[in-house]
Amino acid sequence: METREDPRILLPTDAIIRLSATCICGSDLWPYRGVEAVRGPSPMGHEYVGVVQEVGSEVENIRPGQFVIGSFFASDNTCLICRAGYQTSCIQREPVGGLGAQAQYLRVPLADGTLVATPDTPSDDLIPDLLAASDMLGTGWFGAVAAEVGPGKTVAVVGDGAVGLLAVLAAKQLGAERIIAMSRYEPRQELAIHYGATDIVTERGDDGVARIKDVTDGVGAHSVIEAVGTQESMMTSIRSTRPGGHVGYVGVAHDVQLPGEELFLSHVHLHGGPAPVRRFLPDLIDLIWNRQIDPGKVFDLSLPLEQAAEGYKAMDERRAIMVLLNP
Amino acid sequence: METREDPRILLPTDAIIRLSATCICGSDLWPYRGVEAVRGPSPMGHEYVGVVQEVGSEVENIRPGQFVIGSFFASDNTCLICRAGYQTSCIQREPVGGLGAQAQYLRVPLADGTLVATPDTPSDDLIPDLLAASDMLGTGWFGAVAAEVGPGKTVAVVGDGAVGLLAVLAAKQLGAERIIAMSRYEPRQELAIHYGATDIVTERGDDGVARIKDVTDGVGAHSVIEAVGTQESMMTSIRSTRPGGHVGYVGVAHDVQLPGEELFLSHVHLHGGPAPVRRFLPDLIDLIWNRQIDPGKVFDLSLPLEQAAEGYKAMDERRAIMVLLNP
Repeated sequence: METREDPRILLPTDAIIRLSATCICGSDLWPYRGVEAVRGPSPMGHEYVGVVQEVGSEVENIRPGQFVIGSFFASDNTCLICRAGYQTSCIQREPVGGLGAQAQYLRVPLADGTLVATPDTPSDDLIPDLLAASDMLGTGWFGAVAAEVGPGKTVAVVGDGAVGLLAVLAAKQLGAERIIAMSRYEPRQELAIHYGATDIVTERGDDGVARIKDVTDGVGAHSVIEAVGTQESMMTSIRSTRPGGHVGYVGVAHDVQLPGEELFLSHVHLHGGPAPVRRFLPDLIDLIWNRQIDPGKVFDLSLPLEQAAEGYKAMDERRAIMVLLNP
Repeated sequence: METREDPRILLPTDAIIRLSATCICGSDLWPYRGVEAVRGPSPMGHEYVGVVQEVGSEVENIRPGQFVIGSFFASDNTCLICRAGYQTSCIQREPVGGLGAQAQYLRVPLADGTLVATPDTPSDDLIPDLLAASDMLGTGWFGAVAAEVGPGKTVAVVGDGAVGLLAVLAAKQLGAERIIAMSRYEPRQELAIHYGATDIVTERGDDGVARIKDVTDGVGAHSVIEAVGTQESMMTSIRSTRPGGHVGYVGVAHDVQLPGEELFLSHVHLHGGPAPVRRFLPDLIDLIWNRQIDPGKVFDLSLPLEQAAEGYKAMDERRAIMVLLNP
């Protein structure tokens, strides 16, 4: 933790927001653990909800005083890639992570395209839910959409971090008939069941695949959501999917190499990547605003921003699923 | 070429057909070239059209005298995987390649599920077209379907073998607006244009990707059909596809490893594998029977079966796109 200068408007399309809450993402653990190289002190954090303080001269739709949510890539929401629903591959995209959302104030580029305002100032108890929509919920939701989850389908979720748990919630909302959560940790199993999991598989790797086949006529699930990003989790996901089924992968890939021959013979559909959360934000805000979903339950520890280091430690040691930080 | 015993009915679900024509597939060149190990004399060939000679006691829908087409995997067409349209992953599937369709007679397992009869005995000039449906046309068609080709879309086809050329035909039939064929060989370019290609790209690898981006607003094609099966062709396909676009890959993968990070960031959909030709056969037969498509044009050399060795040589040396063998 160190004090930096408050961010200022740099471009006429920027907005400055005062954060109401931020959090530590599972993906923040990669550099914390040294799996991703870090070249010195770096602004951290890419999840944010808060109140607009100031906007640049070209910002038209976002106004000071609004409560807003954005996601980890700023996007113009007008280019042909955004219009196709892939705002995280926006032609003008800019990572928010480099700006540091684990802070009191944040500069958000491309404010009109990036930020979505809530209908009104939310009550305090909704803030964790809205914060979850900024990344983990939107990412789990994209995983479920990429895996073509729908009514009548059997869905497996590989990974029991916040994204995996919220993928269970998404699968339920999208009408899945059966939802198999892979988890070895009891508090996470309980939350998975709360969100709609019908089965828990504690085995991993090939044993986990065998268990999923056991309960899916020997052929695997229709839809598998990958929410880890390792070689093992990707192979578990591909092998747990029936021929013609769909893998939606949203775990940030680290040292993954997919064997072409096995993939070819698997007959699965593969889709995923950095979740275009912006695509889903209006619907997710609606669901939260109407209290139809409670994604904020993944935050099982809240700390003042000054104790961020303790938050990283708690998540690294699996003492917390997800840590909310109060700026 | 050697003389083997005629095949006989082994199971009550078998049929024996007398081949009217067979051919050498691009994938037969992998063992021919030593890329795939061969442990001694092997029956070759998996593409066949012909007249039913005899059926087993449990065959109900296929009758002696019918002219039939089947594909390279026998399938029951009734299991839950077949019903989902993935007959090449049928729970009972059996490769026909091991039985040897480059022959006068062929035993076809699971005849009821595998074989599709034409409306009547075809005239001789339709036989190459019908033979093409047995594999290359059905495979190119699956590639186009897997790549979600459709009206208004820009499609790129990587590979100018018979499957690639017939993927061009499929893309045209499925309503693609623009079809970019990658080919360096003039006779293949001409056939690609005959089948509906609107653009030819002669560059390969990263240069080919750059050319495709040049003509697609800098973002890549909506749909890319991969019809080779090498590391280079897979990466060219992924890199030529816009974020949110679709790669349909049907080239049999050889020593392919897909880098997880690049795939993750590419935002493409990936689907393919051994084409479930059986899914498409009834429609393809209709199109051929009504002379709406002419896939048999890919056969630019016809030889008597006895000269199969010369046929392999001609294809290996690229003197022929596709060799038809007359048993």
